[in-house]
Amino acid sequence: LKRQAINMRIVFSRLQNSELFTLTYGALVTQLCKDYENDEEVNKQLDKMGYNIGVRLIEDFLARSSIGRCQDFRETADVIAKVAFKMYLGITPSVTNWSPAGDEFSLILESNPLVDFVELPDNHSTLIYSNLLCGILRGALEMVQMAVDVRFVQDTLRGDNVTEIRMKFIKRIEENLPAGDE
Amino acid sequence: LKRQAINMRIVFSRLQNSELFTLTYGALVTQLCKDYENDEEVNKQLDKMGYNIGVRLIEDFLARSSIGRCQDFRETADVIAKVAFKMYLGITPSVTNWSPAGDEFSLILESNPLVDFVELPDNHSTLIYSNLLCGILRGALEMVQMAVDVRFVQDTLRGDNVTEIRMKFIKRIEENLPAGDE
Repeated sequence: LKRQAINMRIVFSRLQNSELFTLTYGALVTQLCKDYENDEEVNKQLDKMGYNIGVRLIEDFLARSSIGRCQDFRETADVIAKVAFKMYLGITPSVTNWSPAGDEFSLILESNPLVDFVELPDNHSTLIYSNLLCGILRGALEMVQMAVDVRFVQDTLRGDNVTEIRMKFIKRIEENLPAGDE
Repeated sequence: LKRQAINMRIVFSRLQNSELFTLTYGALVTQLCKDYENDEEVNKQLDKMGYNIGVRLIEDFLARSSIGRCQDFRETADVIAKVAFKMYLGITPSVTNWSPAGDEFSLILESNPLVDFVELPDNHSTLIYSNLLCGILRGALEMVQMAVDVRFVQDTLRGDNVTEIRMKFIKRIEENLPAGDE
């Protein structure tokens, strides 16, 4: 078990330095900024692209993590922060600011590998640079029958002290059985 | 040393499954196909973006690999295949087809993580999907004073049996000393 712990630490410290991904993501955002007229449109596109990635990534995630169905939204929050973020971005956000009803929480990212070396130019002050992440979470959760609203409420890139993603549970989605299936 | 070998294997097998990068790269190529009129333009853009990534990635590579100046093009080829590809893509291409003068070689990729699950639509038969890699190699090598021509000559995505990147040494670039430096 100890051996495994050591391996994991090394894996993740390497992934954290996955500069190639960071730079490729930067190229994507830069391209979208050229393509669309304003930040709002870019933010929407990033969310949409993220959604398409999320609906595919969930399969990979379930296969690699061997995690089954979560009992409740609290367990979902923990799996997202401790397993999914760790696996794909090498970081573990903290889960905080639960709403009294338990249907909303925040992921606080102390650091965000997507924004290494990034500085927003003045004319992109409303760009939500990492918005792909919101789309990915939304898409992936939809595939496990959870409709969730996901958005950035704080971002170090825009001068906030931390990066905060707010997640709000909307509803459980009915599983659509394929036609002809019992 | 043995312990280290074990760690490395795990690191790389994880990186190889870095589906998030693969899908994000797919989103980038898809966007460029929307933006530009023909495959040739998309190929050029990918190469250009790759170049910009390469000139930045080289710093990260030199810092992480602790590799010094290569003695000759053969050593450069080995470092690219065995260290750089392994580090960033989790694969080790073979180095073959050397020209008699030793100024050209091929990298043969048995598998290419960028194209996992990708199929080229009929109307993109001339798209060089992974062309970012050529740009990255060109940009990174330029930063260590080597002008190199890099291009795909075979691609499994386009029906070839393997993926082959051809690299041709053009010239050593004179180091430009910053003005005022001795």
